[in-house]
Amino acid sequence: MPIPSELNPTPRILMGPGPSDVHPRVLRAMATPLIGHLDPQFLGIMDEVKSMLREVFRTQNDLTFAVSATGSAGMETCFVNLLEPGDEALVCVNGVFGNRMSDIVERCGAKLHRVDAEWGEPIDPAQVKKALEKCRPKVVAIVHAETSTGVLQPVEEIGQMAHEAGALFLLDTVTSLGGADVRVDDWGVDAVYSGTQKCLSAPPGLSPVSFSPAAVEAIQSRKSKVQSWYLDMTMVKNYWGGDRAYHHTAPITSVYALREALRLILEEGLEARFERHRRNHELLRDGLEELGFEFAVAPQYRLPMLNAVRLPDGVEDAPTRKRLLQEYNIEVGGGLGKFAGKLWRVGLMGHSCDENHVNCLLSALRRILR
Amino acid sequence: MPIPSELNPTPRILMGPGPSDVHPRVLRAMATPLIGHLDPQFLGIMDEVKSMLREVFRTQNDLTFAVSATGSAGMETCFVNLLEPGDEALVCVNGVFGNRMSDIVERCGAKLHRVDAEWGEPIDPAQVKKALEKCRPKVVAIVHAETSTGVLQPVEEIGQMAHEAGALFLLDTVTSLGGADVRVDDWGVDAVYSGTQKCLSAPPGLSPVSFSPAAVEAIQSRKSKVQSWYLDMTMVKNYWGGDRAYHHTAPITSVYALREALRLILEEGLEARFERHRRNHELLRDGLEELGFEFAVAPQYRLPMLNAVRLPDGVEDAPTRKRLLQEYNIEVGGGLGKFAGKLWRVGLMGHSCDENHVNCLLSALRRILR
Repeated sequence: MPIPSELNPTPRILMGPGPSDVHPRVLRAMATPLIGHLDPQFLGIMDEVKSMLREVFRTQNDLTFAVSATGSAGMETCFVNLLEPGDEALVCVNGVFGNRMSDIVERCGAKLHRVDAEWGEPIDPAQVKKALEKCRPKVVAIVHAETSTGVLQPVEEIGQMAHEAGALFLLDTVTSLGGADVRVDDWGVDAVYSGTQKCLSAPPGLSPVSFSPAAVEAIQSRKSKVQSWYLDMTMVKNYWGGDRAYHHTAPITSVYALREALRLILEEGLEARFERHRRNHELLRDGLEELGFEFAVAPQYRLPMLNAVRLPDGVEDAPTRKRLLQEYNIEVGGGLGKFAGKLWRVGLMGHSCDENHVNCLLSALRRILR
Repeated sequence: MPIPSELNPTPRILMGPGPSDVHPRVLRAMATPLIGHLDPQFLGIMDEVKSMLREVFRTQNDLTFAVSATGSAGMETCFVNLLEPGDEALVCVNGVFGNRMSDIVERCGAKLHRVDAEWGEPIDPAQVKKALEKCRPKVVAIVHAETSTGVLQPVEEIGQMAHEAGALFLLDTVTSLGGADVRVDDWGVDAVYSGTQKCLSAPPGLSPVSFSPAAVEAIQSRKSKVQSWYLDMTMVKNYWGGDRAYHHTAPITSVYALREALRLILEEGLEARFERHRRNHELLRDGLEELGFEFAVAPQYRLPMLNAVRLPDGVEDAPTRKRLLQEYNIEVGGGLGKFAGKLWRVGLMGHSCDENHVNCLLSALRRILR
């Protein structure tokens, strides 16, 4: 085989469900020569990342850091550490990622209870309440921002119900963190995970997580070993924590990138960032509706950073996305799961959440659809 | 908390057990703007990475790609996919990483059989033969290059025994791949994993793996689901394979880096690269022995890329390594596990395997120890 030529991907405008565009400062951070993962300077960098993640998660949780793999591994980390065979878990499902949670619960050997809602609708707290009367879950899990449907889930009430039922409250913030308010402590979240490639605008590769003292206690009182060695918090916490005991080799460059992405977020300020996401979402919404797109989600439950829209009559999904990519270098996402072929997912995430991006997409669509 | 200042780690000379130094071309590749993980251009990049990995592993295995996490996750991938609860596995243990394999086997609910050797010595094939008379393992696993002890393990004979016993042969090449010969097909290896941050000289974050047709068959005939969702080959193979079915979001930038690192390897040529590792190892060996260091491993089993040496009498471990780092910016590794505080692990891996590096280290040590 001839050796492939120099890396030369076409520059794209990333407006899909992730990865999002990355700020040039983050790219530059990734070109920084590596230091060792046990170098005192790298330990300092890990501490800075932990502190900044606590600010972004709005938490005081000591056990707050980034799992050395992508967001889905963060999901798995939360479940495999909290659940043991025979435990019960209640999972709220209204899209692909709630389904994925259910799958993982069963792989843990735990008994799964589900509360379902239609795709495109939020979970009804009354249904959760009813379900909690019939089971004794160790964990109640829900997705804050369903990337497959564009639904923003109100979670405070459900978190409270979970605690009243004696359960830990587990929250997926892969798509929301850094783009909409996530209040881990105020909302009583016991285990939370995210991904770097959405509104944090770092490349995919790490999964920020945080565990409350109650979750840490649950992990420490396990009777069995965590089924995953790589994701076992009883060891990983000593690597990211005070002991710095060798576990695996942290992805140095990805940590550099996350550190720079977090610096950018704190420089902008969380509130200003959320406001930017709302503003550009409204601009996009108005433009898309003018073109005949229809939002799949009711206004009060719409995610600003992930716009799920049904195509105007007569507009074909794949060929139109292909034209956007080939003629305009703009990527938008197709539907996932039962929404495949039925809608688009237009991302406005982090650095990609930009008025110029919105204008480019709307102008291109006007040309293509006219 | 004030926002941390600009990323500014001190440039280091990395001569520990990994990460190794990264070629400037790899750093530059990482500064390339991201494209989507389902972009046709990224699918092309994945194909190129798969092809180049096949050359480096010397295999025709179709299922050859990079797991989206570091080397230890590659280890876990191999075991959790091949083993089901109740299966038996025979693990050869002569260091930290054989121990880690044993731990993972037990977390899979499989019955563990061990063949042990002293740390610093290779596994004796006769012991493996004896063990195989007393158990019926589905998998026989061994480490090719024990990073904790510096031992290069001859594996062909043991692989043959595994097959004669009807078992799959699983090999850890985290430290050897790209620095010493690894012949997956010739040696009858059924499952193999490595890491990017050693002799491949890309940043940590991916774990190249390859599965033989027999291993794929074993995975496909499982009765139970793989316990890890993230590492489940029955799904991941459709993401890296023809279907491109969405599973997780690949770490785009890490794949860029691995692609460039593999290009550098193939440009140099595998044989030339191995010869470079041998040559610099000999130079380092002569210099270290002159300074009173003693190799922990007999000459015929020494790894060229990981030199495990006992310190000269009267030389203290931690303070000396600290001086090397602080005064010369040179990182060497300390001992691991039962070798902690007892020896150094001096890495000559990939781009770090350089005559100038060897000269810098030896000159610095002459100054410090005189």
